[in-house]
Amino acid sequence: MAKQNIFDNETFFENYQKLREREVNANNLFEIPERLKMLPDVKGLKILDLGCGSGEECVEYIKMGAKAVVGVDISEKMLEVAKEKNSDPAITYLCMPMEDIGSIEGEFDLAVSSLALHYIEDFKGVVKNVGRLLKKGGEFIFSQEHPMVTCHSGTAGSRWTRDENGNKIHVNISNYGKEGERETSWFVDNVKIYHRMFSTVINDLAEGGFAVERLAEPLPSDELLEKYPEYYDLFHKPDFLLVKARKV
Amino acid sequence: MAKQNIFDNETFFENYQKLREREVNANNLFEIPERLKMLPDVKGLKILDLGCGSGEECVEYIKMGAKAVVGVDISEKMLEVAKEKNSDPAITYLCMPMEDIGSIEGEFDLAVSSLALHYIEDFKGVVKNVGRLLKKGGEFIFSQEHPMVTCHSGTAGSRWTRDENGNKIHVNISNYGKEGERETSWFVDNVKIYHRMFSTVINDLAEGGFAVERLAEPLPSDELLEKYPEYYDLFHKPDFLLVKARKV
Repeated sequence: MAKQNIFDNETFFENYQKLREREVNANNLFEIPERLKMLPDVKGLKILDLGCGSGEECVEYIKMGAKAVVGVDISEKMLEVAKEKNSDPAITYLCMPMEDIGSIEGEFDLAVSSLALHYIEDFKGVVKNVGRLLKKGGEFIFSQEHPMVTCHSGTAGSRWTRDENGNKIHVNISNYGKEGERETSWFVDNVKIYHRMFSTVINDLAEGGFAVERLAEPLPSDELLEKYPEYYDLFHKPDFLLVKARKV
Repeated sequence: MAKQNIFDNETFFENYQKLREREVNANNLFEIPERLKMLPDVKGLKILDLGCGSGEECVEYIKMGAKAVVGVDISEKMLEVAKEKNSDPAITYLCMPMEDIGSIEGEFDLAVSSLALHYIEDFKGVVKNVGRLLKKGGEFIFSQEHPMVTCHSGTAGSRWTRDENGNKIHVNISNYGKEGERETSWFVDNVKIYHRMFSTVINDLAEGGFAVERLAEPLPSDELLEKYPEYYDLFHKPDFLLVKARKV
């Protein structure tokens, strides 16, 4: 199956870096807090971070007391940043597609992945390998783009129906039931993501030997909406799906 | 919390009976086959059927070898039909809201519910009671309207955006993140359903002591589409969500 390495595209890479540097973005406001809530106490744990990018999370886990982190990413450019900005003796960075983690030896207490799995065609295969690498009772905690987002083809602008003043009225959903590759434009054209229905995400985990313990579709609080009213959109369509599953 | 008894509304009741008598409807083509696939071998089992309506399923389970079935429904009219058409010494019909099953004594091997739970405000409470009534390892298998359906307010017609020829282009989704009561029109006005996000359904089950083993969002096969092309719509938005969970 295809293994996409969009983060090594220079335009994509630069724009992505800029986006993540902004303090107010959906990752910081919704994805990160929800993921941290799902995390167990990481003290003394050996952690596998899939799609670790520039390693911010890896170094964060070490600061939180993790014993060791293995960060995997397909993008050499992202890992260069990781080694420069977020290196630590307890972190090992591996440049490989997430689909190839079968080659890693060792047993992990926890596997995490932040907003990377929707770039992966073979989710079932990754789940299987994560299951093999985790000890029994170990958790797999990941976030991905929400299925009501990944089902979309075309530009982000065509996702919404707006009134005459440009206000968003509703999301236009089509082909949610047609799984597989989508080409979208995000900084560059032809960014490939892979759409899976809710049921496929859950069933692939269950069939891979995981018990799904918690899902989250983060929404803004009233307090947050007062400061950033534009995030009301998330009530129409959450941006993220987070999953906490345990190897049984 | 509100306990709705829409099936005792005469107009609703008559129209619903007519709909279910049609051989080609979404229940027969998608909900029933998928639910049957999820069922374990029911031979010798004691089964609880929540929202059993006119008892078709109850009598079916007995024919399949179940030892005993308790059918619960809030509608006296539906249970009158059940007693007339689908009675059996091994079936006990109870006229009560599903929210009141805490009053039932006994232990069940299997709990089933077909397209009834979206009429219930207190899903968490029902899950808790089902957990209490099931033996350890017992399954809870249910279907409900899909979350991309239950989020909708207003008439079914306003759900779609159509092209100039009246063909459906996409579903209009808004307020998926706003859970709770929706008033829709189905045969009569003011039919109340309760919208829950995917994550709430899964989390309520997990918190209630269930492991979610399988989800299904049924879609038409190519074969079926050749006969009934109108069901292509389901690729845009499945009508049903089915869940198989096990008491752990």
